[in-house]
Amino acid sequence: MSEALAIFWNGEPVAQIPALSRGLQYGDGVFRTMLMLDGAVIAAEAQLAKLVADAAALGLQAPALDRLQADLASVAAFGDATIKLLLARAGHQRGYKPLTAEADRLMIIHPPPAAGSAPAVEGIAAIRSPVTMAAQPLLAGIKHLNRLEQVLASRDWPNGIDEAVLGDDRGQPVCATRANLFWVRNAVLHTPSLDRCGVAGVTRSRVLALAEAAGIECRMGSQPWSALMAADEAFLTGSLIGIWPLRAIDSHCYQGARPITRRLQALLGHPSNVVPLTVR
Amino acid sequence: MSEALAIFWNGEPVAQIPALSRGLQYGDGVFRTMLMLDGAVIAAEAQLAKLVADAAALGLQAPALDRLQADLASVAAFGDATIKLLLARAGHQRGYKPLTAEADRLMIIHPPPAAGSAPAVEGIAAIRSPVTMAAQPLLAGIKHLNRLEQVLASRDWPNGIDEAVLGDDRGQPVCATRANLFWVRNAVLHTPSLDRCGVAGVTRSRVLALAEAAGIECRMGSQPWSALMAADEAFLTGSLIGIWPLRAIDSHCYQGARPITRRLQALLGHPSNVVPLTVR
Repeated sequence: MSEALAIFWNGEPVAQIPALSRGLQYGDGVFRTMLMLDGAVIAAEAQLAKLVADAAALGLQAPALDRLQADLASVAAFGDATIKLLLARAGHQRGYKPLTAEADRLMIIHPPPAAGSAPAVEGIAAIRSPVTMAAQPLLAGIKHLNRLEQVLASRDWPNGIDEAVLGDDRGQPVCATRANLFWVRNAVLHTPSLDRCGVAGVTRSRVLALAEAAGIECRMGSQPWSALMAADEAFLTGSLIGIWPLRAIDSHCYQGARPITRRLQALLGHPSNVVPLTVR
Repeated sequence: MSEALAIFWNGEPVAQIPALSRGLQYGDGVFRTMLMLDGAVIAAEAQLAKLVADAAALGLQAPALDRLQADLASVAAFGDATIKLLLARAGHQRGYKPLTAEADRLMIIHPPPAAGSAPAVEGIAAIRSPVTMAAQPLLAGIKHLNRLEQVLASRDWPNGIDEAVLGDDRGQPVCATRANLFWVRNAVLHTPSLDRCGVAGVTRSRVLALAEAAGIECRMGSQPWSALMAADEAFLTGSLIGIWPLRAIDSHCYQGARPITRRLQALLGHPSNVVPLTVR
């Protein structure tokens, strides 16, 4: 919730952007949110690769990788920070029709999240969101700028609630507003497939790869809410949070030692799961 | 496609807007596009009422009506123009959670559309879009800033094509990218209901009211593509275009005298259906 430390538009420090940006007018763009520690962005390569792939899915030509890497390097002096890198289709003509594949770059620097390691140790409580995600396979998995469902699902959380888990129109849980969803049942790791809705996070991919390499059986697929509720463990993943155990969804509590969650937290080694970050 | 003539942010002339606007970050806002002729905005009252109602559906408190009316009055000297009035949730904190119901106002002035009366007389040809609209009842009917489906559906039109008609996941036609859809069968006027997806235009409401007052039977509801294809007449409505007959969808042609379309065009009296507008 803190103030932005710096904002760059196509590499130049700014406070404002062109009013006619298609990012504002139509949400015609994509973004990633990343954590930088000591000047190094966590999983930078994977983040930029996903940004480029998401852009391509909208017919957007992302800037060259070395251009994006230079953007990140240019803010290394901030040390610990949250970096949001956003691409919006260039052009300022009226009308939905995209006239170019070129993109403007917006980079926003915020302080790192202040949550410390408590949520990673103790877990968080979530609600089951009253918002049902719409199925749009053309946009599924992409972190684009059309995020009204997440805005609606972020309203009106009761005290003590830190997330909302959203489901789809088939009655299957998909993800949280800012995080991907995993659960463990009988030592098998489950995560929803994101081919109809939801955002495919980089940390989700990293956790799946780590689990597989560690010999943990992984299943990606869609299952009913009852499968999530019957799980032995459940957790959320995100680039800023690493892995946060779910302590409860509504009145349903997850108890026990969470052996696989703990193991994956250790394998991921995300700093916010270990020590509080410095808020500058 | 022409350049903007003027841009106002909260009443002040600008070229840029705050980079952290939630309008850009999340598409957290709504808009209307209106036609002004000789300094008078067509159906201004209905446009502003719909803007306020759409804002409320997102939990946004629109500025007072007299404030919005003053915005429109302030640009009357442009004479003939296209006016886009956009409300984006105020605030610049990071995160989806909306912290205020207050909205910033962006007003963009473009020249009026240059199409003249030819499309209104001769009709236009459309394709059936390969993009299927996602069903999100919480956002259906609202003209919000999450418009990626319209962007995707506006790509790659063959030569001679002026619109794309989108359907929903139930195989039912809903609307065009920038227009609402009507058809006539056995002297009954049909238009899709917009309770699952689509944008409810002001001109759509006006046409329904005019038809009803003229004793034309109207049915709002969802029907399969085959109903649209079997229609005697079909047309599109929009605030900039008035009523444009559909000459064809893909290879299916609508022929005949279009008596109800012509009658409704006369009743609506939209200037772009009558005489070419002045492009300044």
